[in-house]
Amino acid sequence: MLYEINEKAIRLENEGKKIIRLNLGDPDLATPNEIIEAAYAAMKAGKTKYSSSYGETNLRERLAELHGVKAENVVITPGSKWGIFATMYLMMKAGGNVIIPTPYWTAYDLIAKSLGAQTKLLRTEMEDGWKVDLDKLEAMIDKNTRMIILNNPNNPTSKVMDAETLDGIVEIANKKGVTILSDEVYGTISFVKTKSILEYDGNHTHILSNGFSKTFTMTGWRIGYIIANKQLVDNITKLNQITINNVPVFIQEAALKALEMQKQLATKIKEEYQERAKMATKTLAKAGLSFTKPEAPFYVFPKHPGLNSEKFTLDLLDKGVAVAPGTAFGDYKEHFRISLTAPRDEIKTALDKISEALE
Amino acid sequence: MLYEINEKAIRLENEGKKIIRLNLGDPDLATPNEIIEAAYAAMKAGKTKYSSSYGETNLRERLAELHGVKAENVVITPGSKWGIFATMYLMMKAGGNVIIPTPYWTAYDLIAKSLGAQTKLLRTEMEDGWKVDLDKLEAMIDKNTRMIILNNPNNPTSKVMDAETLDGIVEIANKKGVTILSDEVYGTISFVKTKSILEYDGNHTHILSNGFSKTFTMTGWRIGYIIANKQLVDNITKLNQITINNVPVFIQEAALKALEMQKQLATKIKEEYQERAKMATKTLAKAGLSFTKPEAPFYVFPKHPGLNSEKFTLDLLDKGVAVAPGTAFGDYKEHFRISLTAPRDEIKTALDKISEALE
Repeated sequence: MLYEINEKAIRLENEGKKIIRLNLGDPDLATPNEIIEAAYAAMKAGKTKYSSSYGETNLRERLAELHGVKAENVVITPGSKWGIFATMYLMMKAGGNVIIPTPYWTAYDLIAKSLGAQTKLLRTEMEDGWKVDLDKLEAMIDKNTRMIILNNPNNPTSKVMDAETLDGIVEIANKKGVTILSDEVYGTISFVKTKSILEYDGNHTHILSNGFSKTFTMTGWRIGYIIANKQLVDNITKLNQITINNVPVFIQEAALKALEMQKQLATKIKEEYQERAKMATKTLAKAGLSFTKPEAPFYVFPKHPGLNSEKFTLDLLDKGVAVAPGTAFGDYKEHFRISLTAPRDEIKTALDKISEALE
Repeated sequence: MLYEINEKAIRLENEGKKIIRLNLGDPDLATPNEIIEAAYAAMKAGKTKYSSSYGETNLRERLAELHGVKAENVVITPGSKWGIFATMYLMMKAGGNVIIPTPYWTAYDLIAKSLGAQTKLLRTEMEDGWKVDLDKLEAMIDKNTRMIILNNPNNPTSKVMDAETLDGIVEIANKKGVTILSDEVYGTISFVKTKSILEYDGNHTHILSNGFSKTFTMTGWRIGYIIANKQLVDNITKLNQITINNVPVFIQEAALKALEMQKQLATKIKEEYQERAKMATKTLAKAGLSFTKPEAPFYVFPKHPGLNSEKFTLDLLDKGVAVAPGTAFGDYKEHFRISLTAPRDEIKTALDKISEALE
């Protein structure tokens, strides 16, 4: 439903309609000019050829340094989604099941289904602060469980997992011999301290997925990376060789430039989105919606008792506002997701229309 | 072996060694400046966002016009290899077999193996002008055959399939209800008339794979496309949504610019590669090698009786020349593939080293 809404929004825009797009995690801010210039310089320097399916050495080394790992543990992917698909493809194409706490990012479930893997959903509730129940998690693991997928900070709730819960999950996973794939694409820009899966794990039992989209406003550039043990990195590289071959080198050069600017850009994004979140939650509370306070960009995931979120979302789209229905993130029919990824005045207009539609 | 040679060549270069790289189909010519400028302009215009997993409407429409199909039959992919993987993934992940004439492009076989599909190799011989035996093909098809992959013009032989043979293959495929996936990435720049699979097929029973890499010297940009029936296009789009999401829009804008320059660029490439082929075949004939005359860029696939092509290739790499062993293209141990993708003086030096090594 997430992608259908997006294709419909694009169609309406192509027909000339004005749509306020709060349906994707695609920041309205432009990609910083320095990053564009780095890509352009690389193109002009002839970095337009086939290249290594591992990714460029300089970028892998820089990322390794930032994360405190070795370059051999890093593989560059065309977006973090590709890294997640590749990991799941390699670990699950022969079957098995994956445990995913909900609400979840749609892609995890769609990938699992596409691969013929079974999905075991571990429900969390707004009323419990979206906390994973460790006993339920442990009981859910069986001999066919290949993976637990964590998304921390979480899309769609913008909730950061508390350290104690994460400790508990890792302990259970280690005890049961199950791999954690931790998608931390919102980690660098979260408003509160966020523990990375890499903090646990000298031997790369577990896997980090990350990308440049969110921190550097580079969504459409399609670049991310996986940090894992050397064997998985080698296997993803082999899969890259028979699929995407390589991320364009000029895009990797742009990413390298982006890393130079990380501190400055992350600070700016955090400040802007904290302001937006403050504004949005104020209006949404006034409209009688309940939600947990965002601890990271870009989302609020409010609940309205009795809502039919798919109908609501489609109706709202016809009124010029695109949001995502709660059902796109699991069995959350009374919720919908607002991405605060538009200029403040547009968000304000959209929030007013949302409040109106809920009256 | 193809990818191992390439990663080794990159490693040697990183160590400061000079390698003449005749191991890939990666033209030495630079991407034309107009194409780079189009990408840059698009980046500056903010075309750096998530976009449709189908590809941009304007590019799909232009390609549809060029191929005489509808835009709904076109999906943009990050390289033609991704389009081939996506097609095979969707049609073969549940099993079945694929028939591939050999010598073949390595990726077909590796993709099939990765998907757990069975590969049936239909051997062709240099001595027969690399002609597919239609009776053998028909006998090979069984109830589990999902697909026949054609590569026309062929990599590694640079042979164009004669119209009569192609007619025969299509007739057999239609009779048996088997889909042809026709990889025509060298089609626009072939030296002789090349019949496209689209000429047969109003209803898109069969599938065309194509890309921008070869015609426009855009190998590292990673952009290609599939032309197929609407259902497969929709399904590839759904797979794009959970994997690569979209080809960067600024790259699609660059591709659109490239299409404007198609005639002029294709002519230039054909002229240059015909000259290179002439020069190469002269030297190779002198060295006592046998081969069929290239009918398209970029390859010659000579045979040397008694050759151990893997050992030969690795030894040659240590002497500073990278070529690909025949075994990377099937059971062709006495062959090796030379890509004429370097300036003429470098090709000359490399050919001399090859002649020397074979003495």
